[in-house]
Amino acid sequence: MSVNKVDLKEKFSLFKEHWQPKVVGELNGQYVKLAKLKGEFVWHQHDNEDELFMVIKGKLKIKLRDRDIDLDEGQFFIVPRGVEHLPIADEEVHVMLFEPKSVLNTGDKKNERTVDHLDRI
Amino acid sequence: MSVNKVDLKEKFSLFKEHWQPKVVGELNGQYVKLAKLKGEFVWHQHDNEDELFMVIKGKLKIKLRDRDIDLDEGQFFIVPRGVEHLPIADEEVHVMLFEPKSVLNTGDKKNERTVDHLDRI
Repeated sequence: MSVNKVDLKEKFSLFKEHWQPKVVGELNGQYVKLAKLKGEFVWHQHDNEDELFMVIKGKLKIKLRDRDIDLDEGQFFIVPRGVEHLPIADEEVHVMLFEPKSVLNTGDKKNERTVDHLDRI
Repeated sequence: MSVNKVDLKEKFSLFKEHWQPKVVGELNGQYVKLAKLKGEFVWHQHDNEDELFMVIKGKLKIKLRDRDIDLDEGQFFIVPRGVEHLPIADEEVHVMLFEPKSVLNTGDKKNERTVDHLDRI
């Protein structure tokens, strides 16, 4: 477990790739992750985990099957377990994620977007 | 569980009192809380829960027994379970907390600063 403070801007400066969440903190069986997103992800759901998306910089749309959630800086949304969602970023967005360590980024789908190995930065 | 997005600034505008965390989200047995802090709290520890402090506005000092952690906006620190800590804010600071639902604000201490009832906003 990290025993140092974490500066979000400094951590975001350490990577460029999209859709590759980085672990920056761990607590109570949960990870704090940072990710840069751009473009459209894939529809998926997490059967057993709720997932928090908080926008640090930019704008993020989270499409649900029945509505869209539009997030600006300083806003977050918790996708409840079992709810299909599709993150979309027209321009690059910086997000902080809070979710159980067990979460797979593509949820119930396993495909070329799946990240098996999580980097810690 | 909230199924709406949460805007931190809007939520912070809804209360003024210090050292009274408000629940703004719940996921995986954890709460997301917002608090306004000013002055010095009390030394305490959480025996079974790690606690994340993220500064949204202002500055926060978290004194540990062996060192001080100074947090600016956009920085967070995770106080590991069992570690004594003392939050101090010379000026009002706005913080976001992530911690298990079981956390009592004063940890192992029960005193006049203890908040038994958590408001949801």
